[in-house]
Amino acid sequence: MGRGRLLYAQSGGVTAVINATAAAVIETARAARVPVLAARNGILGALREDLIDTTKETRSAIAALRHTPGGAFGSCRYKLRSLEHNRAEYERLIAVFRAHDIRWFLYNGGNDSADTALKISQIGQELGYPINVIGVPKTVDNDLAVTDTCPGFGSVAKYIAVSVAEASLDVESMCESSTKVFIVEVMGRHAGWIAAASGMAARKAGEPPHLILFPEIPFDEAQFLQRVKACVEKVGYCTVVASEGIRNKAGQFLAEAGTRDAFGHTQLGGVAPFLAERVKAKLGYKYHWALPDYLQRSARHLASKTDVLQAYAVGKAAVEYAMAGRNAVMPVIVRTSDTPYRWKIEPAPLSKVANHEKKLPKSFITKDGYGITAAARRYLEPLIRGEDPPPYGRDGLPIYVRLENRSVSRTLPAYTIDDR
Amino acid sequence: MGRGRLLYAQSGGVTAVINATAAAVIETARAARVPVLAARNGILGALREDLIDTTKETRSAIAALRHTPGGAFGSCRYKLRSLEHNRAEYERLIAVFRAHDIRWFLYNGGNDSADTALKISQIGQELGYPINVIGVPKTVDNDLAVTDTCPGFGSVAKYIAVSVAEASLDVESMCESSTKVFIVEVMGRHAGWIAAASGMAARKAGEPPHLILFPEIPFDEAQFLQRVKACVEKVGYCTVVASEGIRNKAGQFLAEAGTRDAFGHTQLGGVAPFLAERVKAKLGYKYHWALPDYLQRSARHLASKTDVLQAYAVGKAAVEYAMAGRNAVMPVIVRTSDTPYRWKIEPAPLSKVANHEKKLPKSFITKDGYGITAAARRYLEPLIRGEDPPPYGRDGLPIYVRLENRSVSRTLPAYTIDDR
Repeated sequence: MGRGRLLYAQSGGVTAVINATAAAVIETARAARVPVLAARNGILGALREDLIDTTKETRSAIAALRHTPGGAFGSCRYKLRSLEHNRAEYERLIAVFRAHDIRWFLYNGGNDSADTALKISQIGQELGYPINVIGVPKTVDNDLAVTDTCPGFGSVAKYIAVSVAEASLDVESMCESSTKVFIVEVMGRHAGWIAAASGMAARKAGEPPHLILFPEIPFDEAQFLQRVKACVEKVGYCTVVASEGIRNKAGQFLAEAGTRDAFGHTQLGGVAPFLAERVKAKLGYKYHWALPDYLQRSARHLASKTDVLQAYAVGKAAVEYAMAGRNAVMPVIVRTSDTPYRWKIEPAPLSKVANHEKKLPKSFITKDGYGITAAARRYLEPLIRGEDPPPYGRDGLPIYVRLENRSVSRTLPAYTIDDR
Repeated sequence: MGRGRLLYAQSGGVTAVINATAAAVIETARAARVPVLAARNGILGALREDLIDTTKETRSAIAALRHTPGGAFGSCRYKLRSLEHNRAEYERLIAVFRAHDIRWFLYNGGNDSADTALKISQIGQELGYPINVIGVPKTVDNDLAVTDTCPGFGSVAKYIAVSVAEASLDVESMCESSTKVFIVEVMGRHAGWIAAASGMAARKAGEPPHLILFPEIPFDEAQFLQRVKACVEKVGYCTVVASEGIRNKAGQFLAEAGTRDAFGHTQLGGVAPFLAERVKAKLGYKYHWALPDYLQRSARHLASKTDVLQAYAVGKAAVEYAMAGRNAVMPVIVRTSDTPYRWKIEPAPLSKVANHEKKLPKSFITKDGYGITAAARRYLEPLIRGEDPPPYGRDGLPIYVRLENRSVSRTLPAYTIDDR
């Protein structure tokens, strides 16, 4: 393919399968004889000229990324400001690209990253440096626009559905003389995709989870407690799945930790203990609650095969689009059929993805606000389908790879990031 | 084998593999042509004459118990009082046994259940009703005396080790600009077996978890914070595993919910958020914490094969002991070799098991109090070895069985349990 290198960077919260995308990028580029550099810790590494030479990694190490969770090159929470506010940052990126003959930049992330990728694609043109920028989708939150689903989501969805089914069997066994209300808090700041996925644990009506609390539905405590009581009286126990992002009628988060991350998002956590306390205080039931937190998004051991295949497919397509000279696009997943499930990858303009947020459709939530509909099940089921376990060692642990991550020599002056 | 029936009951907190024991009991008894009844909700069902006829279940349903978490017949937290304090309760049990021609009683539980089994074995002799009582070991806490390990523990151990390894890869990817301290709270009220198991996540020195907080070691906040800080400064982040049962130097639980269960045990929960707040307040690091709660003990999808085999083996041996006319014994696991790992099942007197509690040996905790030794690793490694995934359906979920659980007709007057 001639000269030039491809730069790959991971951004935002990592997932169980983002490294499968990385494996696809590197393997596809290697087949096209294009060297791949990776930015250490996402865009921060690109700004600092802190680059990793992936050509030093063995073929088997790259292949093992396919089944290794976390972000192999490091990721970051860092949002580039607008061109007007920090043009120097964009110019620095172009300087780094120029210094390392980077012709293609692949940015693997969510909404904010699509926005960053779009901006870089524009400044490249403006500064007269030919750079093809491809956004690569990833987010457990499943809230990217255009794409049918986001790599990372299917595996969290499967983990949460399986975990809720398993823990509910536990609670059911003991409910007569022990825990009657079990609350699981799941991720999903503004959209209830993961909460909805928990509903897949129920194969038949009446099976747990009995109540799902979505961020899309304002929380009504009196009604919630009434539903919990009715459920316990009917089936002996109640499994509740609560999104971390549920809010009261005034729009306030139920559990607000009061801290904000680099993107200005509120750091949430602690809805489950809050709800548990209300249940205890008002209904007197013994409770337990679980908050799997990062366990849910890193559980590669229980990844969805559909998700792994799609994570790989978007990485492969991203390199192909780059090689074909496309710019400012993202490979997205297009669903062509529910039954049998069929999908394909297509390019979508980054401008249609950047900064949009895909909410859970109203048609996915039951009228009462506490469950998922048949339409939701049709959507979700193929996404959690199939298993793709990692290899395990003789010691009973999965064999996850740790790359060498050898640095490329710097050629530019040091750059200090204004981390605000 | 002639007439007579065997009664099986599950007691206390259930596990990912207690139903594998149930499968072994029923399959072994069926092979010996002994009908098995199960008490619904443990000893409560035996007292109420609320019995399940397992002969109505298909062979495939019983086989599927081997890979189904929870307690298939229901369990309970209910401790029989001493013979002196409630002799009527014991007499009622014998009346139920007599009414249903129950000659063998298998009680599948932990310390308290071994004590109950021992008492029933004694009253049978005293009341002139021939009953053979066998205790069958089970507990995720791994705190039963005599046995090398307890069925249920190996699977929690594997789940926690794998989850800590996975989530740490996630944290490591993001630590430069996001979470620096990640705290996982694990079960284990008085003994740090599960906390110790998390140490298996580290294949090499320096790998996470970086700090383990054991209930055996009084918590020293200043020292803990110092260790967290040193770790973050050295490797960029710190993974902490905290037992729910850690106490301060005065012997008080760090997080005391203030409620007590039927055995008089304090209901714990919330050490992780407490520690996280201290880290934030004193060191200013961004944190996340996870509290998997019941997810850890019901995660049959990630069961240890060693654990499943042992859970089955104790159930099989229990029936064999019963048929051989033994009384007041428990099949225990005897380790005959670490490398290669070899074990066998032997009978142990219930009197040696009942009410004893096996603490984590001091030799398993490193001198600094925050890690596990090579001796601990030698002990733990075989217990988490091997995978035994359940079958999955086309829908991406494990296929867990729900039994028919048909009731046996009652023949005795109703009995009211004095539930204090």
